[in-house]
Amino acid sequence: MTFKLHCFGESGNSYKAALALQLSGLDWEPVFVDFFGGAARTDEYRALNPMGEAPLLQDGDHCISQSGVIQQYITDKTGKFGGEGDDKYEVLRWVLWDNHKLSSMCGMTRFLMNFLPEDKRPQEVIGFNQGRLKAAYAVLDSHLEGRDWIVGDGITNADLSCCGYLYYPEPFGFDRADWPNIDRWLTNISDQPGWKAPYDLMPGSPADRA
Amino acid sequence: MTFKLHCFGESGNSYKAALALQLSGLDWEPVFVDFFGGAARTDEYRALNPMGEAPLLQDGDHCISQSGVIQQYITDKTGKFGGEGDDKYEVLRWVLWDNHKLSSMCGMTRFLMNFLPEDKRPQEVIGFNQGRLKAAYAVLDSHLEGRDWIVGDGITNADLSCCGYLYYPEPFGFDRADWPNIDRWLTNISDQPGWKAPYDLMPGSPADRA
Repeated sequence: MTFKLHCFGESGNSYKAALALQLSGLDWEPVFVDFFGGAARTDEYRALNPMGEAPLLQDGDHCISQSGVIQQYITDKTGKFGGEGDDKYEVLRWVLWDNHKLSSMCGMTRFLMNFLPEDKRPQEVIGFNQGRLKAAYAVLDSHLEGRDWIVGDGITNADLSCCGYLYYPEPFGFDRADWPNIDRWLTNISDQPGWKAPYDLMPGSPADRA
Repeated sequence: MTFKLHCFGESGNSYKAALALQLSGLDWEPVFVDFFGGAARTDEYRALNPMGEAPLLQDGDHCISQSGVIQQYITDKTGKFGGEGDDKYEVLRWVLWDNHKLSSMCGMTRFLMNFLPEDKRPQEVIGFNQGRLKAAYAVLDSHLEGRDWIVGDGITNADLSCCGYLYYPEPFGFDRADWPNIDRWLTNISDQPGWKAPYDLMPGSPADRA
């Protein structure tokens, strides 16, 4: 049975799930959600996911949404990326932190700065978010001092969650050069066999809409 | 062994953990974190939680942070609030959604509107956040149509997470009267034996600083 991941290239939350599938060795294929064309708001898609969000994982008739839940599902299927023993709490801690402080802010700020028309971009909001993001990068960079991975001795869902938006080329106030520990850690992840950048792993990119 | 929860009344994230402890029947006591007085930034507190956040649960020498992780820990200890079988994915889905879309936005917006000096409140950010929040309330209210609880037939961490900021009296753009399903569901939660409102369950409130 091939897992189907409903996703689109621009979505860092989709990327978290796609990357977990890709590195897990499970058999999977992406299904393009034309998010910018309104596909996630159709009745057909809402029947699969009432929240109208991507990513969405289909395992036969079973539909799972929220990237962190898809990651946990992959962990339960494969035994990978969940951390050893009590590390599972640390993994969940960073997945929640990422949702609360990092990816939610990166995703929104990147959207406002790149995918809204120039005259619709709320500059005060963008500036405020970038301040919040700087504090989040500092927490992550400081934690990664002397560490190869966020939790324990290998890659976990903590890494696969927190990296979700950090490989994208569009500007949103993040520069790897400013954060040496994050930079090194992102290379550790991209050195994993099978790793691909977001627009190479999932269908759809800003180039398609240019 | 009594669990110690480092928390403060204004913190909706602390409330999520405190309410889970309170309704679980576990033996616990709150430890006041003087957040507005800078206590969470002290070396002593950072040694317990390098992220400098509340809540923090101490179980003997074991320290656990992030409200969603504390809730999972309580579930693992008691068997309560985790959902039955595959419902665990649905519970996690809503906990993540709450962190991503609801509580993070409520908490920030409430802080900006109530705990910053009046001349420091970024009005464009507040307005933008309230728009995002309205979309989140609509998702939750629509989901609760015909349901007593977010997942399954009883109270879970999904409820205990999503309700975190919704009992507070300070204005942040939420009025129970606007959302009848949310209103009914908040009453279902507050009808639970042992339930207390945030400022009754945890030490510290705006009144102390007035």
